[in-house]
Amino acid sequence: MNTSKKAVVLLSGGLDSATCLAIANELGFACYALSVDYGQRHSAELTAARNVAAAVAAELKTIRLDLRVFGGSALTDDIDVPEAVGEGIPVTYVPARNTIMLSLALAWAEVLGAGDIFIGVNAVDYSGYPDCRPEFIKSYEQMANIATKAGVENNRLSIHTPLIDLSKADIIRKGTELGVDYRLTVSCYQADHGGRACGVCDSCRIRASGFKEAGVSDPTRYQPA
Amino acid sequence: MNTSKKAVVLLSGGLDSATCLAIANELGFACYALSVDYGQRHSAELTAARNVAAAVAAELKTIRLDLRVFGGSALTDDIDVPEAVGEGIPVTYVPARNTIMLSLALAWAEVLGAGDIFIGVNAVDYSGYPDCRPEFIKSYEQMANIATKAGVENNRLSIHTPLIDLSKADIIRKGTELGVDYRLTVSCYQADHGGRACGVCDSCRIRASGFKEAGVSDPTRYQPA
Repeated sequence: MNTSKKAVVLLSGGLDSATCLAIANELGFACYALSVDYGQRHSAELTAARNVAAAVAAELKTIRLDLRVFGGSALTDDIDVPEAVGEGIPVTYVPARNTIMLSLALAWAEVLGAGDIFIGVNAVDYSGYPDCRPEFIKSYEQMANIATKAGVENNRLSIHTPLIDLSKADIIRKGTELGVDYRLTVSCYQADHGGRACGVCDSCRIRASGFKEAGVSDPTRYQPA
Repeated sequence: MNTSKKAVVLLSGGLDSATCLAIANELGFACYALSVDYGQRHSAELTAARNVAAAVAAELKTIRLDLRVFGGSALTDDIDVPEAVGEGIPVTYVPARNTIMLSLALAWAEVLGAGDIFIGVNAVDYSGYPDCRPEFIKSYEQMANIATKAGVENNRLSIHTPLIDLSKADIIRKGTELGVDYRLTVSCYQADHGGRACGVCDSCRIRASGFKEAGVSDPTRYQPA
């Protein structure tokens, strides 16, 4: 294992990014976790990110970027979170979110001299989000190599998406194998301040059925009914 | 002129972006100016952005993003601003700055339903900056069309760089033709709180010789010696 190779890992505090961090760590990267506070409704995700980073002794930086300035999403606006998956692009889509997240990771990677960025995007459960697709990641990586010193100086900058083709159950199996403590993670769109999940939003339902399908007991802390 | 077509215009408060805004306005776009407060040393630029936007009655939004969290540049760190242009990539280069700026513009464009983004990058005076080159802009545009709803739904998203091949003198001539009040703008890396320029940094020297070469009287307000 090469522990000197640095990687920036985007960490939301959710199940996917926690697994992504565990994979980067297992591959021997010195991990630098980046959490973006883009004006979420609750800070439970950020607390979760702190706990998840601490569990693998990764340095964590949190950068605040209040995307509510622009509006346009159920996750940052004061509109209701939907409970059912519809057609096309979901209203929970945050405009240009992964483009922005990757750009912030790119800035830190340049400063660190890191050539690797990990992001826990998934094209299976989030097929309606344009910025979760493999063709987006490939195009972003090409751009990033032109945008940066690393690109100019002919080093390679790679964007890793180890979860992109995995089902939620596969992700949970992989993370469980690597010792991820999913009790620390928060996936719910409307978790309470203590990080307890609502159990009814899309994200909660996808998560719960993932544990069931993986045959792993679900450690999620739910709000009292 | 089609006044219903919206464009997001990145506006720093400097000479270049003020000219870029005037060009977008002249082309008939309904302009939405975006100013990013990325932890600059002085707020004079932000005041300048407000005044420049007001001059063409463009809506202005300012979004705060403290890139000092990452360090790595003379413009955001507490290191001295250099007074001479050296070889290669300048130390005043802010890591991934234009990538981040364009990503924020992209988010607002998505919310507005705008298909056009203007950025006043220039490859003549800033040849050492990887993210000021035409190949970067082209690659970013390709990525943006894959990253967004507009791309998925086959509308086009265009990144306009009307200044990219112009000399500073050409930019000043063009802006003067369009009635830009350059007295409102601040280019200096170390302007004082009132927006008065130092007169000695790279940016000041490039600006002053631009006015001279253009044969336009220089309205810049300088600090007392």
